Amino acid sequence: MHPAVSRLSLDEKISLLTGDTFWSTRGIEHAEIEGATLTDGPHGVRLQSGAADHLGINDSHPATAFPTAAATGSTWDPELLAEMGEALGRESRALDVDVLLGPGVNIKRSPLCGRNFEYFSEDPLLAGALGSAWVRGIQQQGVGASLKHFAANNQEFERMRISAEVDERTLREIYLPAFERTVKEAQPATVMCSYNRVNGVYASENRWLLTDVLRDEWGYQGYVVSDWGAVNNPPAAVAAGLDLTMPAAGARHAADVRAALEAGEVDEAAIDIAVSRILTAHDRLRADRGATEDVDFEAHHALARRIAAESTVLLANEGAILPLSAEQGGAIAVIGEFARTPRYQGAGSSHINPTRLDTALEAIREATSRDVAFAAGFRLDGQADAALVDEAVAAARGAETVVLFLGLPDAEESEGFDRTHLDLPAVQRGLLDAVVAANANVVVVLSNGSVVSLDGIAGHVPAILEAWLGGQASGSAAADVLFGIAEPGGRLAETIPLRLADNPAHVNFPGTPKKVVYGERIYVGYRWYDMTERDVAFPFGFGLGYTTFTLSDVAVSAPESGRAHAVVEATVTNTGSRAGAEVVQVYVGDPEASVDRPVRELKAFQKVRLAAGESTRVRLELDDRAFAFWGESGWTVEPGAFVVEVGTSSRDIVAAETIELDVPAPVFSLDIESTVGDWQRHPQGAGVLSQALAQQGAQVAAIISDEEMVRMLESMPLRTLLGFGGEVDGTEVVHQLLAEV
Amino acid sequence: MHPAVSRLSLDEKISLLTGDTFWSTRGIEHAEIEGATLTDGPHGVRLQSGAADHLGINDSHPATAFPTAAATGSTWDPELLAEMGEALGRESRALDVDVLLGPGVNIKRSPLCGRNFEYFSEDPLLAGALGSAWVRGIQQQGVGASLKHFAANNQEFERMRISAEVDERTLREIYLPAFERTVKEAQPATVMCSYNRVNGVYASENRWLLTDVLRDEWGYQGYVVSDWGAVNNPPAAVAAGLDLTMPAAGARHAADVRAALEAGEVDEAAIDIAVSRILTAHDRLRADRGATEDVDFEAHHALARRIAAESTVLLANEGAILPLSAEQGGAIAVIGEFARTPRYQGAGSSHINPTRLDTALEAIREATSRDVAFAAGFRLDGQADAALVDEAVAAARGAETVVLFLGLPDAEESEGFDRTHLDLPAVQRGLLDAVVAANANVVVVLSNGSVVSLDGIAGHVPAILEAWLGGQASGSAAADVLFGIAEPGGRLAETIPLRLADNPAHVNFPGTPKKVVYGERIYVGYRWYDMTERDVAFPFGFGLGYTTFTLSDVAVSAPESGRAHAVVEATVTNTGSRAGAEVVQVYVGDPEASVDRPVRELKAFQKVRLAAGESTRVRLELDDRAFAFWGESGWTVEPGAFVVEVGTSSRDIVAAETIELDVPAPVFSLDIESTVGDWQRHPQGAGVLSQALAQQGAQVAAIISDEEMVRMLESMPLRTLLGFGGEVDGTEVVHQLLAEV
Repeated sequence: MHPAVSRLSLDEKISLLTGDTFWSTRGIEHAEIEGATLTDGPHGVRLQSGAADHLGINDSHPATAFPTAAATGSTWDPELLAEMGEALGRESRALDVDVLLGPGVNIKRSPLCGRNFEYFSEDPLLAGALGSAWVRGIQQQGVGASLKHFAANNQEFERMRISAEVDERTLREIYLPAFERTVKEAQPATVMCSYNRVNGVYASENRWLLTDVLRDEWGYQGYVVSDWGAVNNPPAAVAAGLDLTMPAAGARHAADVRAALEAGEVDEAAIDIAVSRILTAHDRLRADRGATEDVDFEAHHALARRIAAESTVLLANEGAILPLSAEQGGAIAVIGEFARTPRYQGAGSSHINPTRLDTALEAIREATSRDVAFAAGFRLDGQADAALVDEAVAAARGAETVVLFLGLPDAEESEGFDRTHLDLPAVQRGLLDAVVAANANVVVVLSNGSVVSLDGIAGHVPAILEAWLGGQASGSAAADVLFGIAEPGGRLAETIPLRLADNPAHVNFPGTPKKVVYGERIYVGYRWYDMTERDVAFPFGFGLGYTTFTLSDVAVSAPESGRAHAVVEATVTNTGSRAGAEVVQVYVGDPEASVDRPVRELKAFQKVRLAAGESTRVRLELDDRAFAFWGESGWTVEPGAFVVEVGTSSRDIVAAETIELDVPAPVFSLDIESTVGDWQRHPQGAGVLSQALAQQGAQVAAIISDEEMVRMLESMPLRTLLGFGGEVDGTEVVHQLLAEV
Repeated sequence: MHPAVSRLSLDEKISLLTGDTFWSTRGIEHAEIEGATLTDGPHGVRLQSGAADHLGINDSHPATAFPTAAATGSTWDPELLAEMGEALGRESRALDVDVLLGPGVNIKRSPLCGRNFEYFSEDPLLAGALGSAWVRGIQQQGVGASLKHFAANNQEFERMRISAEVDERTLREIYLPAFERTVKEAQPATVMCSYNRVNGVYASENRWLLTDVLRDEWGYQGYVVSDWGAVNNPPAAVAAGLDLTMPAAGARHAADVRAALEAGEVDEAAIDIAVSRILTAHDRLRADRGATEDVDFEAHHALARRIAAESTVLLANEGAILPLSAEQGGAIAVIGEFARTPRYQGAGSSHINPTRLDTALEAIREATSRDVAFAAGFRLDGQADAALVDEAVAAARGAETVVLFLGLPDAEESEGFDRTHLDLPAVQRGLLDAVVAANANVVVVLSNGSVVSLDGIAGHVPAILEAWLGGQASGSAAADVLFGIAEPGGRLAETIPLRLADNPAHVNFPGTPKKVVYGERIYVGYRWYDMTERDVAFPFGFGLGYTTFTLSDVAVSAPESGRAHAVVEATVTNTGSRAGAEVVQVYVGDPEASVDRPVRELKAFQKVRLAAGESTRVRLELDDRAFAFWGESGWTVEPGAFVVEVGTSSRDIVAAETIELDVPAPVFSLDIESTVGDWQRHPQGAGVLSQALAQQGAQVAAIISDEEMVRMLESMPLRTLLGFGGEVDGTEVVHQLLAEV
């Protein structure tokens, strides 16, 4: 218990359970409690000086706008995320911000989710690895993270009252592991509960989520803060394990908690614990702090630029049209409004007032001595404008190469609502066709927070760069990548489907106002496309580079008997003529499982940077969770064969090795409902059953010894079989047999 | 209350709640209660004389084996089903059977379900129309039906303990309507509860299902009988509304019920009602009976033959290779063991001892004067046999036309277990390739209880006849269709997918031992393939004939204001040179719905028989249910546009008309959780809100008047918006506003 707690009156303690202002917690001088400032992130520090809001509306202090999570998810580079976290920590410290509200590690269930730009991936392992590194980075600076939005918040539609209906296995295998890993590895100062309900209960009031899982199972030490406005019933939230209600909740909050205390619905002990957690977390952050330093915004801008290039995914590069030569060649036509009016961040609470803003057009002009023409090509408001198209076509005709900047304007994706389709605006698709007709040498650069349909683009232009929402340096990073000053370092953290209807959540997203059924269960992202044998535009994990790599001499071993553990080794060789990076991806499949499992799941990865011609041997370890599924009694690893695949995307598997895990078979117990099949599979049950059957009627014995009959009867509870016809009391006999087992 | 109830002791009443024997209920002489015989159907009367079982094992009296429901589902002909029901009624009467256990109207959720052959369709309207007609037919003879398996029993895997996890809308729109229609239209004497759990509660103990829905909503008058062995807790079953536990349940049943009575868990009144329902239903059946007549088994065989032809779906007929000439042409090679060893019925409780059995080989030889050679081609046990293949290839080489009988052997599909793939046995696929290489003029005739993959067949042979499991006359019916003595009258009652992975339930079927999630919700069958824009091998409703039809002059009108009702008219013309039948199918879509809805749903159909050149005008009515979805307050029809399509399959739409339904908008009420969007959409709420906002802070007012902001805020509960920052008590203000509304 934090020592200050004992010095506080009940009213004071209650007052600490909610904010003092929109962005701060309360200080209490006599108890030496300092308030703390929590403010929006996670891609930059959004500290408002004037009117406060949680919607990205009013002004905030200038801060570096780093690439969004949609971008950084594609880096597959935890160390780079840690570096970004550190930079954000420095900027937070400079602005006296104690907690920056991020990272968002929710899973991209549907590409339509309006807030996907704030999330890393469709894969929980990747999201957790990146989120954890980000938290480590920022907290090293003595600034707290707020791991959000806990949990199952995978859409904006009706986010404040909809119930995500998700079975526990799906939660455990898909929607919770990124939180779990970040909590266990990095202990974020705060975890932010989401607005929505999870299986009928508001996240803010969900004791299973906030206490049973988060604290008792995962050992979480920090405090749980509500998303701004997510608390509906303050006492129920306190009782469930929510510590801090944000923003300042007014007099009613205190009155409600007090009344609940008096009614015995909430214990004072629960309030003490909540207060203690808040104060302890803030103390720890402050203890970890060095002296405040001036922020080197130039360095942070350079970092943002580097991260943006590392986030950029080269999807196509026919005829090695990229990188462009900076010195040689004819004119370059830069087309697209986004080249001078970058779309570089998402709308909503993460909205940053950037310290500066690079445009691709200027950066390209700086980078090259070739002639550069510009045409806007389309209007951001989606209104058709034939003159703009004509101008663009003329520019394209006069150029050797066209660099065409397309993407989603602000109005198309945002916190607060979801998209309803994957298409680029019609004016951009029309422009693309017109430009390609005029000049086939088109490089498309995309700015968007979640995947867009590439129908009509992929296969129609030689090169595509997916640059996501790349932050304030996205323009210069684009030029870096276009001219090969930087590698396009990104690999897809989400599958690009051929069409919306292929998406796993398609028939269930976004649900009715009250409920959204997660009917696809664990089959999210590539797990779905693999299981349903669906072609995709570009698979999860995919991305080209400017050099080439080989993966060879893959070796997988499971050296320890009795333990689920394997070691994967592979030789990575840069076979091209430039330095570059490859992401070695390890997938595991469990073809013999007793439950349905995905064809393959990402279980380890490593980004490897190599000079031209260089070679290295990577070694990745797989622990028990790499082989486990969530069964009826928790995480379960079954003995037998597992397929370990090594590749460069979920569909570019270079080597697949089958290993046998020599672990004990999970224990299962027989009960009154156990079927004939259960009895026959059970180590002791089989013997007891066959002895018992010898004493039963000849008919039952004959049936059970007949192979085809057994197939029909496997699913029949033993008591039903024995009791058929009423001569034997099946329930009683099975109870006797259970006693024998 | 049945008058006998008052003459019975409590023990006597309890004794009537379960069977006297495996197949009969108890009689009590002093109360003039006669026992009744219930026995398996539904495709023939399975009356056992010796040892009793529910698995199709021991012998039974000879009876006509009519085509299975997989076949009759394809007739799209309720009147024919009524005729079959009448015939089954006559055979039941002759054997003193009071209740024949059928029809099965469960929905074909996955083609893998081992018992699909007992079910009609993937579509609830079609299943209900056929089931209802069957019940009408059999009950006209004074023999009761048992509508089964109620409910959500769509697989065999773990059928006796698994819980079907289905949301209510999906139950109401997909899995219950066939039961609902049959109950309301035909009042089957009994409804049989299924083995499985529905949302955690055994169907046999599910009060919502057996009482709230079945009796209180649908007005069911008969009695509910358990599937044989489906009762786990007799008192809980009685309390839920189960009337009769079958088979004879032994002394424990009475003891358990007695104990529950004494403990006050069951009322004696509930027992009285159950007994009364059983006795009343039996009395009614007996009152409806005429004199027992001798069964004309020849006539029933002829009927079975006619139904089998009406069930046969002509999937392909390139170059009009069918019908074959009976008189002219070279030799016909009949290949395939099924030609002489027909697969004509399913395995399990519906297994019939047929009065006779026609083989296709003999029937073909009788039908034609052409040379007919035969080769078995493959072994039914799946063992490879090169000699059989060689013999078949030789026969094919020597023939002008090959008729190749393929299908699923008994061991591949059965009650009691599900398939794991859609493929024909490898020996048959190998044979097909060898035969086609020798002679391209191949007509494939398929015998199977649920769809098989046609990969490697469709497009590889000119003609395919899907004959399903066609009953004891399936052999002669096949000859009738092959030589054009009969039309192939069938239309697909289930989609044939391109591959298993395309199936709606693919990632969820068959679940774990305890639970199966119906994650695809209402998107079953063609509803799924349309919604996910998936190509299929052959669409729902599809089937060719030997003549051609046009549908023209489609007119759709919604003549009545204030009521959801429409009339569809179309002219059907037989444009070919033979008599034949077409099935006019009417689908409805609701593009403007407030909830997600299928692209199209079958809402009316009519099979039209026309002579060559003949033309007729059909008129189909659509009532309110044709436009309704199951909303939060029950069946809901929203005003506005509906698309009414008329076609000959779900993917052969001839005409689509948009109508406007002028019905009142559903009333919705605002509550404390209502969002800004709800308030703005609400007829009174909008005004109250804007007045209230005028009094709120300028910031809120500004936000709410900004179109883009509103889009972001639409999902925000009004109380959250107003309460943000804690200055206003949002909950209190919204309560005031609600009072104003």
